[in-house]
Amino acid sequence: MKSISVHLDRLVRGLSKLPGIGPKSASRIAFYILKMRYEDVEALAQAMLGLKLNITQCSRCGGIADGEICPVCADETRDRGLLCIVQGAKDMLTIENTGGYRGLFHVLGGLISPLDGIGPEDLKIGRLVERCREESIREVILALNPTIEGDATALYIARQIQPLSIRVSRIAHGIPVGADLDFTDTATIVRSLENRTEL
Amino acid sequence: MKSISVHLDRLVRGLSKLPGIGPKSASRIAFYILKMRYEDVEALAQAMLGLKLNITQCSRCGGIADGEICPVCADETRDRGLLCIVQGAKDMLTIENTGGYRGLFHVLGGLISPLDGIGPEDLKIGRLVERCREESIREVILALNPTIEGDATALYIARQIQPLSIRVSRIAHGIPVGADLDFTDTATIVRSLENRTEL
Repeated sequence: MKSISVHLDRLVRGLSKLPGIGPKSASRIAFYILKMRYEDVEALAQAMLGLKLNITQCSRCGGIADGEICPVCADETRDRGLLCIVQGAKDMLTIENTGGYRGLFHVLGGLISPLDGIGPEDLKIGRLVERCREESIREVILALNPTIEGDATALYIARQIQPLSIRVSRIAHGIPVGADLDFTDTATIVRSLENRTEL
Repeated sequence: MKSISVHLDRLVRGLSKLPGIGPKSASRIAFYILKMRYEDVEALAQAMLGLKLNITQCSRCGGIADGEICPVCADETRDRGLLCIVQGAKDMLTIENTGGYRGLFHVLGGLISPLDGIGPEDLKIGRLVERCREESIREVILALNPTIEGDATALYIARQIQPLSIRVSRIAHGIPVGADLDFTDTATIVRSLENRTEL
C-alpha cells in the first residue's frame, strides 16, 4: 500500500484502533474530517481531551462523574433503597438511558475472572458490602452479563450480602422482547425456561 | 435521556456526526477513549488537527499532498501517458491501494450535477484539458461512479478531450468479481451485457 500523505496515514492508523472502526471506515472518517471546518475538528479533538482530563470517578457509586458525585447519586428523588450492581460505567448509562430504573447504582469496575488474575479484592465489592451496611438498602439488583465471569461474580456478591438480610435479585435473562424463538441460541432458551414466570 | 457527564455527552455528540458512527458506536468509542492513555488520546487529537493543518492540494493532479506535489505525481517511474480521472482524492487512494495502476491521476473535485448547481466550470475540467494539451498523455481513463452525475461528467469530458486525438476510455461496470448473478441488481446486469467482452 503506497502512502499519499503521512498525515492521512497517521490519522487512519489512530482511528483504526478505536472499537468498531476498521481501516475502510477509518479512511472514510479521515476524508470526512479533511472536509470539516477547522473549528469543528478542533472542538472534536478538545472533546476527546476534555473527557480524559475532566471525568472523575463518583466517590459514592464508582461510576463516572464530572465532579465529586455523579448526578444519579446526587439526585434526592431517587429510590435509595434499591441498588443496581453493574460491571462498568457504560452499563450504568445503558440502564439509566432506558428511563425504567429509579434506584441507585454501584459500579464494580470489572468481574471476577481468575484467568485474567482478577479476584474479588480487585473489584469494588468491599465498598458494596460497606454501602449495604451503612445505607438503608432493601434490595440489591445484580445486572451483570450472563457469562461465566458474570455468574461467578453474582454468586460471590450474593453470598456476601445475604447475611445482611437484604434481598438480592438478578435481572432476568431470557428471550429478547420482539425476538423469534427460532433464532434464539440454546443457552438463552434454557435460561428462559429455568426463569419462567407464573401468569 | 439523563446526562451523567457533560464531557461524555459532548464527545458522544461530536463522534455521532462522523460517517458510519451512530449514537451507540459513539458511546462505545467514548468509553474506550476514557480508558486510553492520555498520550494516546492526545496523539489521536493531534492527528486530526495535523491532517487539517498540513494537508494541501497537489498542484498537478488536484489530489491530496503533504507538500507541493503528491508522491504519485512526483514518482518518475509512473507511466506518464496514462491519466486516470477520479471524482475525489478518496477514489484516487482506493485505486492506488489496489497496486494495479501505474499511470497518473487527475482529481475533478466533484461531478457535474445541475440539481446541486455544480457545472463543468466548478470542476477541474479546464485544467484537465490543459494537462492533455501540455503533457504527453495517450489515454484518459474515466473512473467515475456509474451514477447519472458520473455518466454526465464522463460524457462531457469525453467530448472535450476527443478533439485532441487522445484515447478516452471508461472503467468497466459489471458483475463484481466473486459475486452471484442472482444477487446482482438489474442495472448492473444490463451494464454487464452491454459491455460484454469477446473471449
